[in-house]
Amino acid sequence: MSELAHQQCIACRRDAPRVSVEEINELKPAIPEWQLVERHGIQQLERLYTFSDFRQALEFTCRVGELAEQAGHHPALLTEWGRVTVTWWTHKIHGLHRNDFIMAARTDELIER
Amino acid sequence: MSELAHQQCIACRRDAPRVSVEEINELKPAIPEWQLVERHGIQQLERLYTFSDFRQALEFTCRVGELAEQAGHHPALLTEWGRVTVTWWTHKIHGLHRNDFIMAARTDELIER
Repeated sequence: MSELAHQQCIACRRDAPRVSVEEINELKPAIPEWQLVERHGIQQLERLYTFSDFRQALEFTCRVGELAEQAGHHPALLTEWGRVTVTWWTHKIHGLHRNDFIMAARTDELIER
Repeated sequence: MSELAHQQCIACRRDAPRVSVEEINELKPAIPEWQLVERHGIQQLERLYTFSDFRQALEFTCRVGELAEQAGHHPALLTEWGRVTVTWWTHKIHGLHRNDFIMAARTDELIER
């Protein structure tokens, strides 16, 4: 398990700080396959995972969903034939929290296992 | 079961015709909650379903996924906290086939049951 994935997600309040540029520079190398994207002014982490058919994609969606339920933090999951796009951000703060980087690292581990 | 949902999906070839305006006018009233949308020049059918939490949304995604596997025809499924956006179209013909209207009606029936 990577060090980042091993960290605890902390409860996130509305006044919690978004990650700073320095924190992004620190955290991002641990999740090299993820892209920083901005939608409607909200920074998000996004990764496309590919599979050989629809069923495998759907099964991955379900596993990420279970991970999300356990953590109490939920992504957007776009399931298509042979691909799942996972997007993490923190709704309460309209941007990225350290938790999102932890969840991205944990999502990667579902594949690596 | 609505009449449209009861119809059989037929195997779709690359040279199959897209639905005509007349067919859309005939089929659309059976699925009133669905929107006709166009993305990258491709007509699609889309509906947002809402739920009271993430787990219910994820369970619905899995049920639509099973329906898709049975039919051999697959949608895009965007799962978020309390909502699932289902999009049907036919990749082979870059647009809408009668099958998509049948699958939209069957998706509605998953909720109505």
